[in-house]
Amino acid sequence: MNHRDNAAALDRDDPLGPLREQFALNDGVIYLDGNSLGVPPKAAASRAAAIIAGEWGDGLIRSWNTAGWFAWPKRLGNKLAPLIGAAEDEVVVTDTISINLFKVLSAALRVANERDPKRRVIVSERSNFPTDLYIAQGLIEQLDRGYELRLVDHASELTGAIDENTALGMITHVNYRTGAMHDMAALTRIIHEKGALAVWDLAHSAGAVPVDLNGANADYAVGCTYKYLNGGPGSPAFIWVPKHLQGAFSQPLSGWWGHKKPFDMVPEYRPDDGIGRFLCGTQPIISMGLVECGLDVFGQTSVAALRRKSLALSDLFIDLVETRCREFPLQLVTPRAHTERGSQASFEHPHGYEVMQALIARNVIGDYREPRILRFGFTPLYTRYVDVWDAVEILRDVLETEAWRAPEYAERGAVT
Amino acid sequence: MNHRDNAAALDRDDPLGPLREQFALNDGVIYLDGNSLGVPPKAAASRAAAIIAGEWGDGLIRSWNTAGWFAWPKRLGNKLAPLIGAAEDEVVVTDTISINLFKVLSAALRVANERDPKRRVIVSERSNFPTDLYIAQGLIEQLDRGYELRLVDHASELTGAIDENTALGMITHVNYRTGAMHDMAALTRIIHEKGALAVWDLAHSAGAVPVDLNGANADYAVGCTYKYLNGGPGSPAFIWVPKHLQGAFSQPLSGWWGHKKPFDMVPEYRPDDGIGRFLCGTQPIISMGLVECGLDVFGQTSVAALRRKSLALSDLFIDLVETRCREFPLQLVTPRAHTERGSQASFEHPHGYEVMQALIARNVIGDYREPRILRFGFTPLYTRYVDVWDAVEILRDVLETEAWRAPEYAERGAVT
Repeated sequence: MNHRDNAAALDRDDPLGPLREQFALNDGVIYLDGNSLGVPPKAAASRAAAIIAGEWGDGLIRSWNTAGWFAWPKRLGNKLAPLIGAAEDEVVVTDTISINLFKVLSAALRVANERDPKRRVIVSERSNFPTDLYIAQGLIEQLDRGYELRLVDHASELTGAIDENTALGMITHVNYRTGAMHDMAALTRIIHEKGALAVWDLAHSAGAVPVDLNGANADYAVGCTYKYLNGGPGSPAFIWVPKHLQGAFSQPLSGWWGHKKPFDMVPEYRPDDGIGRFLCGTQPIISMGLVECGLDVFGQTSVAALRRKSLALSDLFIDLVETRCREFPLQLVTPRAHTERGSQASFEHPHGYEVMQALIARNVIGDYREPRILRFGFTPLYTRYVDVWDAVEILRDVLETEAWRAPEYAERGAVT
Repeated sequence: MNHRDNAAALDRDDPLGPLREQFALNDGVIYLDGNSLGVPPKAAASRAAAIIAGEWGDGLIRSWNTAGWFAWPKRLGNKLAPLIGAAEDEVVVTDTISINLFKVLSAALRVANERDPKRRVIVSERSNFPTDLYIAQGLIEQLDRGYELRLVDHASELTGAIDENTALGMITHVNYRTGAMHDMAALTRIIHEKGALAVWDLAHSAGAVPVDLNGANADYAVGCTYKYLNGGPGSPAFIWVPKHLQGAFSQPLSGWWGHKKPFDMVPEYRPDDGIGRFLCGTQPIISMGLVECGLDVFGQTSVAALRRKSLALSDLFIDLVETRCREFPLQLVTPRAHTERGSQASFEHPHGYEVMQALIARNVIGDYREPRILRFGFTPLYTRYVDVWDAVEILRDVLETEAWRAPEYAERGAVT
């Protein structure tokens, strides 16, 4: 397919097409960065107004009970659960992914060492999102009991690196740079066969690809709500612990929201029996409330339908880039096989940074990741086939005219 | 003073009176619970709308740079700093008070043990807010290196409990139940004389009473923004570390926001040189943005002026309760001396819970704390002298008519 009309025809036939209307996305913007920050659901503005004026302003302190604020982490966790193959009361929405990973690693190391005290190694990939590695490093240094973070350079080395000293495999399901996706069930099986536990980071998976945590027999998971789930900038993250592991050990961030009876105000910590023990302190209610607006859109479709469109969008994008831009030095770094990739397509270009700035200046918003990576995320809830066509045409123009060589595109700012 | 007219006269002469106009407080509500959840500044609704539509919706991912989101924890920290006697770049607004306390205790124990490895005791009060004790317990259990939490029953025993084995005094400046306030400078001096470090919790102090952390030579502090600072339900907390201690040790919640160069995306954690190392993960931007609306009101007055009115309001309240309600079994548990109390007045009543429910049903909103405590907070930004008069008259009516005996007031729900 090489014509915009074909793309427009795909949009007309797209059963997910009408969902785009539920998002506040400006005309003329081609947004291929929903893998970094999702677009606001239109409902978010009115929901924020209602929380501020009604629940906070009118209800005041009473809203902790009357609006159910105190129960939101569990209520939203249950609403998110079907997207990741979790059961009721196995998920809470709370804190940040970094903090939730600290909780999970702390608990998981205790469980692993209870089974076998000599297991002191956390295995992960050097290409994992840095905060995951940093949190493991911080925990290991704090524990100061001979734990070690063992990093492999390639996903293919993971299996070999997991051995009789491994306590945990700490695996990010979809790589943030390349979009490469692990086979969760297969890798969990291997980790278990080696006697270790599998901790999964779903930052680039939840709402983007089918995830079946219980089906894969995973042990712990964390993820975020501000990417594909459209919860808003920095919206609270989530944590999943299956029923059979919830009672095993508590976690050290034992704040009052994780207490079995927080309002008894007793001086001794007693963890909640269930997933509640993974809560800690008082949550940012307004940011948390907006997570529900994103989840409500997911309630109108299925992960399978989203996945079909996501693959179709990214297949189209890859095909168009490789045909329409074939004379330029763009190298696909995302696996081609559907089973091996998430919902993004990443290309290397020797001047990736400048090319991305030039694209953004033309309202094609992807992002850049070191080194040299142009990253494009495909969010089937609000991305059209014509957006893909137009984005590639603009990319071709930027490359053909060498617009990216303009000096302003070389300036480096902080990017996320 | 026994007449409402006198109270009204005080309001007419009140230089802080006009600030009430900046808060969205419903007519007819007497809100004496700003020590638990502050009232929304009127600016909060429009600020939320602007963040959602403009920064999130229009700016999308670019707003991390163009709206400065990534810098908000430090920017808001600097705006908050004058309220607590902190210098520039010593405060960040981030995460929750429980999590910030975990960071601070972790760093402080390292500093204390670097000086003297045998110091393994954290001294605190049994009446401290439970989450502080829970977090210390969680950390001690995790470290598993012979640390101990030593709790005293009365504030007067603190000095005696701090000895040559004490690493830290973990002190909440103003007690959440009684409103009793410590002399921060004097107690810090004693803690230092015993060779320990002083960690302060300012949950009920920031924006309520004068605090001079640097003047008191304190070592670490945490606090929250959703009480007297009116940041919104569960709005992000803050953390203060003085310049000379920032480089001493990092903290174990070493997420990417605390990295010296987060966007280099390198696999090794290197902490930021300054207060930034006390950050961890991506923050809830909408909830955080509203913190500024509260801080902006404080920029229009002074802590000294707020303190004068706070004491006048609470003196009036105590005086009226003790004269107008003298035949009822109400016992003041808040110290009378100005130097020894925060911005609340707490009374014990044998049926405190029921009495508070009856008051709330009549739109006098304070709160209840176990056991038997009626808690009334005085927030001089939006509380009037006539509110104090009216509140006491309604309390007298509830007691005189025994309205609190109605069965519906005995039902226990979760309260915060």
